[in-house]
Amino acid sequence: MTSQTTHSAEGHNGNYPGKGIGQPVGVAVLGMGTVGTEVLRLISEFSSNLEQRIGGPIDVRGVAVSDLGKRREVLDLFPDIALTDNALELIDRDDIDVVVEVIGGIEYPRQCVLAALKAGKSVVTANKALIAAHADELSDAANEAGVDLYYEAAVAAAIPVVGTLRRSLAGDQIQRISGIVNGTTNYVLDAMASTGMSYDEALAEATRLGYAEADPTADVEGHDAASKAAILASMGFHSRVTYDDVHAEGITNITAEDIEAAKDAGFTIKLLAICERLFDDAGNTTSVAARVHPTLVPNEHPLASVDKSYNAVFVEAEAAGRLMFYGNGAGGAPTASAVLGDLVGAARNKIHGGRAPADNPYAHYPVADFGDVPTRYHIDMSVVDRAGVLADISRRFADAGISISAVRQEEHGDASRLIVVTHMSIERKLAAIVEELATLDDVKVVNSVIRLDADAAE
Amino acid sequence: MTSQTTHSAEGHNGNYPGKGIGQPVGVAVLGMGTVGTEVLRLISEFSSNLEQRIGGPIDVRGVAVSDLGKRREVLDLFPDIALTDNALELIDRDDIDVVVEVIGGIEYPRQCVLAALKAGKSVVTANKALIAAHADELSDAANEAGVDLYYEAAVAAAIPVVGTLRRSLAGDQIQRISGIVNGTTNYVLDAMASTGMSYDEALAEATRLGYAEADPTADVEGHDAASKAAILASMGFHSRVTYDDVHAEGITNITAEDIEAAKDAGFTIKLLAICERLFDDAGNTTSVAARVHPTLVPNEHPLASVDKSYNAVFVEAEAAGRLMFYGNGAGGAPTASAVLGDLVGAARNKIHGGRAPADNPYAHYPVADFGDVPTRYHIDMSVVDRAGVLADISRRFADAGISISAVRQEEHGDASRLIVVTHMSIERKLAAIVEELATLDDVKVVNSVIRLDADAAE
Repeated sequence: MTSQTTHSAEGHNGNYPGKGIGQPVGVAVLGMGTVGTEVLRLISEFSSNLEQRIGGPIDVRGVAVSDLGKRREVLDLFPDIALTDNALELIDRDDIDVVVEVIGGIEYPRQCVLAALKAGKSVVTANKALIAAHADELSDAANEAGVDLYYEAAVAAAIPVVGTLRRSLAGDQIQRISGIVNGTTNYVLDAMASTGMSYDEALAEATRLGYAEADPTADVEGHDAASKAAILASMGFHSRVTYDDVHAEGITNITAEDIEAAKDAGFTIKLLAICERLFDDAGNTTSVAARVHPTLVPNEHPLASVDKSYNAVFVEAEAAGRLMFYGNGAGGAPTASAVLGDLVGAARNKIHGGRAPADNPYAHYPVADFGDVPTRYHIDMSVVDRAGVLADISRRFADAGISISAVRQEEHGDASRLIVVTHMSIERKLAAIVEELATLDDVKVVNSVIRLDADAAE
Repeated sequence: MTSQTTHSAEGHNGNYPGKGIGQPVGVAVLGMGTVGTEVLRLISEFSSNLEQRIGGPIDVRGVAVSDLGKRREVLDLFPDIALTDNALELIDRDDIDVVVEVIGGIEYPRQCVLAALKAGKSVVTANKALIAAHADELSDAANEAGVDLYYEAAVAAAIPVVGTLRRSLAGDQIQRISGIVNGTTNYVLDAMASTGMSYDEALAEATRLGYAEADPTADVEGHDAASKAAILASMGFHSRVTYDDVHAEGITNITAEDIEAAKDAGFTIKLLAICERLFDDAGNTTSVAARVHPTLVPNEHPLASVDKSYNAVFVEAEAAGRLMFYGNGAGGAPTASAVLGDLVGAARNKIHGGRAPADNPYAHYPVADFGDVPTRYHIDMSVVDRAGVLADISRRFADAGISISAVRQEEHGDASRLIVVTHMSIERKLAAIVEELATLDDVKVVNSVIRLDADAAE
C-alpha cells in the first residue's frame, strides 16, 4: 500500500489546462432510451442555467442511436444535431469533449467508453453493469488520458451517494454501507407487507404500474442491486469489488408467510445491499465483502420505513457517524438529474482545467469469501411435536458453536413451528447448521431462512 | 441574467496548473477548538489514506491559536509544527497551499480568509456565520485569485448537503429546501415531546448532556439555523441570500401545551429552515425566501421522526424529485469529517490543477419580504363561551380572504378553546388577522400561533 499506486496510474502530472471561460463544450449522447431522452430535454430546458454553472455553453453535437428511422420528438429541440448509428465515429470527432453513455448492456458501451477515454474525452455514464464489471480498465484509461469518468447515475439515480463517497467523505473512513438500492424489489416487498399479497400478485401489480420491467429477472434476482453493491464497496473501501464478487440472492422465494412472520416479530423484510469490512482480532481490516439478500430489518430502523419504490442508503463512517440518503432511485428524470450533475462537473473541468482523479483502489483489500462473512439467521422450521425437540435442536447449535438469541415455538394443529434467531456467527457455519437441521427426523421442513441485518441490535 | 456575470467574475481563464503528483500540500489550521483538534487528529490518523486520495501528502505546517501557553495533546502527533498566535503571518507563508479556518466568530476569520484567498491559498472553512454574512466578498476573492473556497461543514456538518447542491444537483433546478439544521433545538423539542417536559427543563437537560452550549441563544433563537438557511438558499437558487435576509424565530415560546396540542392533531413541532421560490402567475420565479421558525410537521412526514440531536434536510428538485439527507449535524468528529472532505478536494486541485468555481449567484433573484411568503397558520385561542363566536370569527377570516381548513372547539370549564387551521395564504394577511383576533372581546387570549409546513398536504 505504497503511494506508488496513485502515481504510476497517472499519465499526466498536474497540468490539465482548460479551454477557457465562455468556450462551448461539445457533447455526444450515446443512446436515446428513457434516460437519454430526458437528458436531452433537460439540457434544452436548463441551457442558460447550465452555461452559468459551467462557465460555457453545453453544445450537444451528436446523438448515437441504434434505429435511425425512429421518430424522436425531443430532437426537435436540437435542430442542428447530428443523428448517427455509428457511435464510435461520433465519439472520435474532434469537436466532442464529453461523451454521455446511456446505452445499457456491457460489451458495446465498454467499447464506446474506452474509445472515448482513449481519445481524451471525459465520460459520464449511468451504466451500473459496465462499471461493476470493468471499473479497473475504465479508470486506468481515464487516468492515462487525464480525463474524467463519472457515474453518479449508476447507483440510486439522483441520490448522490457516489459523489458523496468520492468527494464529501473523501477525508473519512467508511466502515459500512447498507441500503435499499433497487426500487422494483422494494415496491414488491412493500406491496406484500402492506396488503398481504403473494409475491406473484405483487410482482404483477408492479409490472402493471411500470415499477417492474417486462423481464424482471435482473431486479428480482438481485443482479441489479449486486452491480450497485460492487460500485459502492469499491468506492467506499478504495478497493476493487466487481459484480462477480458480490453474493446475490433475490426476493423470489419470499412468501406472504415470511412477511407475516417478520411482522409478528417486529421486522420488515427488505432487499439490502450490504458492503462491509472484515477485521482481524486487532481491529485491522483484512478484507471487504459485498452481498445482496433479503434481510430482516427492525421496524424502528429508518430503512424499514422506506416504502414504495424509494431507495435509501446508509453510510457509516468513522468520523461522520451514520448518514442516510433517501429518494427516488430510478426513473428517467432522477437518473437524468444525476447524469446532468456529472456532465456539469466534466464540462467545468473542460473549461476551467483540472480533473477528478478516477476512483483509486489503492487499499487493494481482498474480497472475503461469502462463507466468512459474519451474519445472523432467522430460521423458521416445522418440527415434530414431541417433548425434547427444542432441547435436542438447541444442543446442535451449541455443538456448532452458534449462540442462540431467541427461540419461539408455536403449535399449529399437530405440527409445531420452531423459530430460532441466532446471534452473530459466520455464514458458513450458519449455512451448515441449516443443512444439518434439514436432515433431522425431528425437522419436517425448514420453511425459511432469512438473515438479520448485522446492524440490528443483538 | 447574461453569461457576463460568470465571465467577469473570473480573474483567470481556464489554466490552473497543479504542482504535480507526489508533491506535498502545505496546510495551515486556524483555530484549535473541538473541530480544529479533531481535524488534526484525523489528518494524523488517516495520513496515508489521504495521501493516496489526494495524490500527495498533507503537510500541516502551522497552527494558529489565541493562547500559545495552553497544553494541547493532539500537537504531540505533529512534533515539527509551527504554533503561532499570528494567523495572518502563518497564512502568508510561501509553503502554505490550503488554509483551514475553524476559529468561529465573523470579523477576525473574515480578515484571515480574505488574506488567504488574496494570497492564492485555497480555503476550507466550517464557519456558517462568516459564509452567511460575507459569501459574496469571499467568492469574488476566490474567483479573482483562482483558488477554491469550500464550506461543507458550515451546514449540518458531515451531512453532505453543500456538496450535493454544488455538484451532484448542479444539473437540476432546486425548488425547495426544508430541514432540521440545528441539533440543540431538535434535542429540546424532541425531549419535550417524548417526556412532556417544559421548555426550561428540556433546555437544562440538553445543557447538562452537552447538546446545548452554556449560552444557547444562537441556537434557541434560530440564529444558527438562519445562517444555514442563508447558505442553502444562496446555493440552491444561485442567488445571494444573507443572514440578514432570513426571517428567524426560535423555540423559546414553545410550551408543553403547544407540543401536546400538536400531538393530538397528528403533528410534531420542529424548528425548520425553509428555503423556497416565489412564483408569478405564469410559474416563473420572481424571488426567493428563507425563513426559520417552529413548524407543525405531519407525523407521517419523514422530518417528523428525526429525533434527538439529528439533522435532516429535504431537497426538492425538478428532475431528481424529493431527496432527504440525514445524520449528525454537529459535533467535533462529524464537522471534522466535512472539513477533511473539503481539504481533500482543495488539496487534489493543488496537485492535479484546476479549481471548483466559487458558488455563482448568477440568477440574482431578489429576496422576498417575509410578509409575502405563502404559509399556513395553526391558531390556538381561548374564547368566550357564547353561541355565535365561531360564526363571528369565521366571518372575519372570510372577510380577510383567508380560507379555513379546519376548526376545532373544546370546552375547558367555563372557557372555550378554539383552534383554527388555515389554508395557504400570505404571511402578512395571516399575521394581520391574528392581530385583529387578539383585539376582540370574544377572544380572551391567543395562546399560540404556529405555522404549518407548506409541504404538508392541505
